[in-house]
Amino acid sequence: MGVKEIRTAVKIDWSKPAWEQPYLHNRWHPDIPACAKIANNEVVKIECMDWTGGQIGNNDSADDLRNVDLSRIHYLSGPFDIETAEPGDVLVVEIQDVQPFQDQPWGFTGVFHKENGGGFLDDFYPDCAKAIWDFEGIFCSSRHIPHVRFAGLIHPGILGCAPSAEVLAEWNKREGELIATHSHLGRDVAKPPEPKYAHAGAATPEIKEKVAQEGARTIPGRPEHGGNCDIKNLSRGSKVYLPVHVPGAKFSVGDLHFSQGDGEISFCGAIEMAGIITIKFSVLKDGMAQLGMKSPIFHPGPVEPQFGPGRYLTFEGFSVDENGKQHFLDATVAYRQTCLRVIEYLRRYGYDDYQIYLLLSCAPVQGHIAGIVDIPNACTTLGVPMDIFDFDIRPETKAVKMDMGTCAYTSDKMQK
Amino acid sequence: MGVKEIRTAVKIDWSKPAWEQPYLHNRWHPDIPACAKIANNEVVKIECMDWTGGQIGNNDSADDLRNVDLSRIHYLSGPFDIETAEPGDVLVVEIQDVQPFQDQPWGFTGVFHKENGGGFLDDFYPDCAKAIWDFEGIFCSSRHIPHVRFAGLIHPGILGCAPSAEVLAEWNKREGELIATHSHLGRDVAKPPEPKYAHAGAATPEIKEKVAQEGARTIPGRPEHGGNCDIKNLSRGSKVYLPVHVPGAKFSVGDLHFSQGDGEISFCGAIEMAGIITIKFSVLKDGMAQLGMKSPIFHPGPVEPQFGPGRYLTFEGFSVDENGKQHFLDATVAYRQTCLRVIEYLRRYGYDDYQIYLLLSCAPVQGHIAGIVDIPNACTTLGVPMDIFDFDIRPETKAVKMDMGTCAYTSDKMQK
Amino acid sequence: MGVKEIRTAVKIDWSKPAWEQPYLHNRWHPDIPACAKIANNEVVKIECMDWTGGQIGNNDSADDLRNVDLSRIHYLSGPFDIETAEPGDVLVVEIQDVQPFQDQPWGFTGVFHKENGGGFLDDFYPDCAKAIWDFEGIFCSSRHIPHVRFAGLIHPGILGCAPSAEVLAEWNKREGELIATHSHLGRDVAKPPEPKYAHAGAATPEIKEKVAQEGARTIPGRPEHGGNCDIKNLSRGSKVYLPVHVPGAKFSVGDLHFSQGDGEISFCGAIEMAGIITIKFSVLKDGMAQLGMKSPIFHPGPVEPQFGPGRYLTFEGFSVDENGKQHFLDATVAYRQTCLRVIEYLRRYGYDDYQIYLLLSCAPVQGHIAGIVDIPNACTTLGVPMDIFDFDIRPETKAVKMDMGTCAYTSDKMQK
Amino acid sequence: MGVKEIRTAVKIDWSKPAWEQPYLHNRWHPDIPACAKIANNEVVKIECMDWTGGQIGNNDSADDLRNVDLSRIHYLSGPFDIETAEPGDVLVVEIQDVQPFQDQPWGFTGVFHKENGGGFLDDFYPDCAKAIWDFEGIFCSSRHIPHVRFAGLIHPGILGCAPSAEVLAEWNKREGELIATHSHLGRDVAKPPEPKYAHAGAATPEIKEKVAQEGARTIPGRPEHGGNCDIKNLSRGSKVYLPVHVPGAKFSVGDLHFSQGDGEISFCGAIEMAGIITIKFSVLKDGMAQLGMKSPIFHPGPVEPQFGPGRYLTFEGFSVDENGKQHFLDATVAYRQTCLRVIEYLRRYGYDDYQIYLLLSCAPVQGHIAGIVDIPNACTTLGVPMDIFDFDIRPETKAVKMDMGTCAYTSDKMQK
Repeated sequence: MGVKEIRTAVKIDWSKPAWEQPYLHNRWHPDIPACAKIANNEVVKIECMDWTGGQIGNNDSADDLRNVDLSRIHYLSGPFDIETAEPGDVLVVEIQDVQPFQDQPWGFTGVFHKENGGGFLDDFYPDCAKAIWDFEGIFCSSRHIPHVRFAGLIHPGILGCAPSAEVLAEWNKREGELIATHSHLGRDVAKPPEPKYAHAGAATPEIKEKVAQEGARTIPGRPEHGGNCDIKNLSRGSKVYLPVHVPGAKFSVGDLHFSQGDGEISFCGAIEMAGIITIKFSVLKDGMAQLGMKSPIFHPGPVEPQFGPGRYLTFEGFSVDENGKQHFLDATVAYRQTCLRVIEYLRRYGYDDYQIYLLLSCAPVQGHIAGIVDIPNACTTLGVPMDIFDFDIRPETKAVKMDMGTCAYTSDKMQK
Repeated sequence: MGVKEIRTAVKIDWSKPAWEQPYLHNRWHPDIPACAKIANNEVVKIECMDWTGGQIGNNDSADDLRNVDLSRIHYLSGPFDIETAEPGDVLVVEIQDVQPFQDQPWGFTGVFHKENGGGFLDDFYPDCAKAIWDFEGIFCSSRHIPHVRFAGLIHPGILGCAPSAEVLAEWNKREGELIATHSHLGRDVAKPPEPKYAHAGAATPEIKEKVAQEGARTIPGRPEHGGNCDIKNLSRGSKVYLPVHVPGAKFSVGDLHFSQGDGEISFCGAIEMAGIITIKFSVLKDGMAQLGMKSPIFHPGPVEPQFGPGRYLTFEGFSVDENGKQHFLDATVAYRQTCLRVIEYLRRYGYDDYQIYLLLSCAPVQGHIAGIVDIPNACTTLGVPMDIFDFDIRPETKAVKMDMGTCAYTSDKMQK
Repeated sequence: MGVKEIRTAVKIDWSKPAWEQPYLHNRWHPDIPACAKIANNEVVKIECMDWTGGQIGNNDSADDLRNVDLSRIHYLSGPFDIETAEPGDVLVVEIQDVQPFQDQPWGFTGVFHKENGGGFLDDFYPDCAKAIWDFEGIFCSSRHIPHVRFAGLIHPGILGCAPSAEVLAEWNKREGELIATHSHLGRDVAKPPEPKYAHAGAATPEIKEKVAQEGARTIPGRPEHGGNCDIKNLSRGSKVYLPVHVPGAKFSVGDLHFSQGDGEISFCGAIEMAGIITIKFSVLKDGMAQLGMKSPIFHPGPVEPQFGPGRYLTFEGFSVDENGKQHFLDATVAYRQTCLRVIEYLRRYGYDDYQIYLLLSCAPVQGHIAGIVDIPNACTTLGVPMDIFDFDIRPETKAVKMDMGTCAYTSDKMQK
Repeated sequence: MGVKEIRTAVKIDWSKPAWEQPYLHNRWHPDIPACAKIANNEVVKIECMDWTGGQIGNNDSADDLRNVDLSRIHYLSGPFDIETAEPGDVLVVEIQDVQPFQDQPWGFTGVFHKENGGGFLDDFYPDCAKAIWDFEGIFCSSRHIPHVRFAGLIHPGILGCAPSAEVLAEWNKREGELIATHSHLGRDVAKPPEPKYAHAGAATPEIKEKVAQEGARTIPGRPEHGGNCDIKNLSRGSKVYLPVHVPGAKFSVGDLHFSQGDGEISFCGAIEMAGIITIKFSVLKDGMAQLGMKSPIFHPGPVEPQFGPGRYLTFEGFSVDENGKQHFLDATVAYRQTCLRVIEYLRRYGYDDYQIYLLLSCAPVQGHIAGIVDIPNACTTLGVPMDIFDFDIRPETKAVKMDMGTCAYTSDKMQK
């Protein structure tokens, strides 16, 4: 008996850059070697860098964000070999806790420049912007978005098991076809494998080269394994059921978020942070067949911040775009309109639009698909918890413009 | 002082069909005459027929549903002239209660046939199906979907103010363009004005003809006024802020739902019912400009059924369709996949797929847009409250097939 | 198939006083004859008078309340014979709905005079006072307590099965002993059987006389059957498990409340109303032995108003009384102090103390036993939902006195 | 800019016993010197020992608990001098986080022996018993109470500002009178000042002697300052408003709990632990007068575990004791009966009574004062969240006895 500390399966070495650490990687590939073994039913702590691997500073300029190379991100901790896990099993991942590092009580939210990643509203807001958030226990606030404060719904943006060679080939094929057929959009529609900056953990040079050539990028979530699904509700206490595609599961995790809104609309839209996740792993043998499972499922945890249903101010949006064009049951168009409606509403208080864009990305807003069958309009809603503001945002209360300062921009924009 | 009963502004005459009642109508048009006046800050009760105007029976056949003509639906109560309301104002609608009629304690959920309306999953489930729900106070259950029971999140599917002539013209123009450019889809993408079965309330023959020719169909919600937005959270205690486009607002309401899931996926997917809604009306002068409002906003009420966050089993879906084709950040595709994942999971208990399709349409499931920026995949989630089942649906508990009977089908299908 | 209305097992005859209606009674006794039979698993509606049987008017004087005779109250609907129920069984009572009468959308809260019933704070507030509440759907507000509005947590104050002769004898014995030994307190400590105004429903004169002589008063709840337990959470959707002591259970119900706070401190402290309760009855054979049950247990329903935990302003109280006297782990003393702390806080806004006393009695305040072992102090808490006020009651916001009018008093007090 | 770690105002020195650490103390006295200064609006971390100062081991025997001397407990961290705080002010304490030490992921719950402290049910359960709890992130479970697991509602049991000399004199006077007048009860009713084991932090010998002679014991909470109020809802995110009685406030905190039920019925009834609390301090000048404040008030935080109202199985209890004796509106008697009802119910599953007694003390059970005016019976309720069990405890589900092992007892009891 006696004291028994929970084992830390991966510890970050802060003296080295992310790309030199053997227990991090930034591509999905079955051949990246496992960095540690974890027993069935074991609880471990895993340290994670923020998704940029430390490229963003706690400062008042967005220049660092402007220059992030998207092939050099998402340094995931892992992969981990989970004892007894075999293809066809389901890996049960109980997220017992997520915490920032005690000596790094801050995170950041960014809008990427339209020409470097962009975001959900980049047709309207093409510039780069950033907000720094300070953590005070369970709460956060930002000098870049004043009069706002809320409890974090802390969670990992990315978790999943490695694809098999077959699954990986399928990913590369279908995303390649999308890229091939959508050049007319004039924007990146997907990210193909990219050897530059590929990090394959402790792989041998040969394997490293293979991973660099074939490895799937980590940006999208994918149905077969989850990955970067960015689900805000995978918070403390959640239990996630993940398909296993390779022996040992080769589970990886990273991209921790102190908070995020539904949609994570500004792309780097959560409150991104480095931290420690505590996970209990267990294996459900033959789970994929037994559960009829093609994509992950989960239970949220019991401790999500609770505002009460009546404390949400909720905005409606429809699949008619900003040019008055009618789209057919398009929930993406509808949700973009819904977001714009919130910006129009909140700018009455003195916020500039980028501040609101950042806030909608990271605060615990609820984005729902309300109606998706009433041709031709999809209707989505976005609920903003009123209690994150220290003033009254109800429609009945007259709006008063306040001095809201500014979020961080790039130096060229600030000089204008 | 003394007892003061709340006034009933519209009473249904059950001895006549919907289309003969002068305080009902089934098109949106500024010229439909108001059927009653309501004072600013007045509370009234309004009786409503079910959305088919009584065409569906409490029986075990879907034949009646198969034959519903979609130009003969959505008999709305109204329009009501709200004292002092002028274009540019915001009409504040507090939904103080919604109740089924005491002598009609039942409702229905339907899947429309693919060739007559269809639904969100009609490529997979083209047939017509129906479930009858019995109400026991706040609860409902169905002989057609056994082992399920839940408290209703009762609400109106449709509420809104009349369009101005300009707004109406815009609707007809943009939806006409959609129809004109999407014939290649081989399915109805919108419903143009349709004189047949148009009901313009107490309009003169001249007006009636005009409404028949120009009147917007009630099927879609629309950004300028709300309408058939089918938002499940507009339940008891909600407060809705609606743009006013014509003098007196000409507010209408109908299509009451005992319960609905996010998306209302089977089209006639809520638990449709006749009933009584209690509303308090007030007017926010010049509200549209003051609130920067283009589309309705609302607060939900404080009494939504609460299951606790950990009592939802939540499914993930991504914008890769059933043929393995990758779509670009398409939340509609993702949500369809999410729905299919739930069907695959729940059929393990013996339900047939139509039963689950019906259930997902009407039970209080939560459909969220989780991630919409991680190119190329949108990710949506669908949370099923586990406590609506009288058996344990957690993944850890071994699934046992039960005799689940059947939902109602059309007679030709049942004979097969 | 087809429409099936829920049966109403008792209908009030509004043309007669409560004491002439054969399906009402105001004593607990095994010999009061059942007024109706209800099948096992049947759902019925039961109409109920308010607890005074209609003695209180919707007016601005408390004179009617001052004159209520406490032997002439609690006209319960029943008793009902539940098919198959036998002593030792447990009667399962699912409260499927509670509604006020449509034509009586109002209720009242009263402080009884110290010399006629009194209340929890009658040493401080000996006078009689009253507030009338108007119902608007799920909400209520009062002209006597302005700037307050909330959703009702509607429930029956009294429900239970008849005592057996043995149980009744035990009640009379133990309460008689209390009365006999506590005359030094100079106040009523219990109410013994009282022939005056006893109403035994449809009993024969002989039985009526027996009931009048022996029948237990309805004021207290009692461990063996529940009765007037005044639990605010027995609201829509709750399920109550009640011990059965006589053949057929002889279940009675009444004293409906639109809302109540924990403790119901002003005695007539809920929002008292007449209305209709919908109940499903079922029988758990041999349930008392199987469940080890001595007193009722229950599940609350899923639709309680939800404010969010952070929206309660919570007050602490300890078992040191207003004279500085230390009591030993006395939660009653502590709760009284807690109530006084709230009054001291809220009077800063201009309310008079009786208004707050009434409000704490009927609003959905949460009264908890926090600590009961730290000798010598019991600690209790009382949480006030801040959202019932239309102004900000947080300590950080400077209190401004408003004109709060007055609650209703007796005419002699108002003349002073 | 840049990283800014939160300052730790007190660090425990694990190489020394509690009573040798100058920033701990175990009496309330105005003259105990402040151990650190904290600025107005500063956020600090404060390390705390468990309430016994480390006397209890992570083992399977209750011998260590049996021998705890109650004059040698409650080693509080502090007192802290809060900049600008003066008598009459209110100290606002925002509890931003509470965490166990990473290398001590466990806690304990104890029943004290009736002859050494006892507990709320010591007439029934006089022996000493103990359960050890293991922490897995936000969850805890115990080898001594199997089939139970829940998320902690983590909080400090004790926080408050030092009494002034006048307040201290009042405490000693009124508690002395209680002791003097209650010797007939044959049990300790309060704890007078006790020089033995008094620890006055860094006080000079002179002051130390004064504190030893006069210092108030820390066991009870007290109305003037809070202290050991053991309110389970003072968890992450709460904001507490505390009266200030001495210059600098001299705030102290300790007795951290991983979880506790309402009442903390077994006395050492929370899950006791050592850990770190993060607090933001601010001062409300002249707050006591402005708020009309005599005792602390607070807001709970937004992240309490949420089970949904329908997931509580709730037990009723009344002020009739186990001998059938009727008490007058005695909520303490009623709550004791309520607790006994739960034990009778849960023992059907194979738990022994001490296991349930321990569980009710530490699990997040809700203890409410339901009715306190229906003479002669007070009615209290105790809600047990069903989801803390891994089996179904609903009354409808047949109870099956399981092997529940045993909690830890003293060695003499285990030999029997």
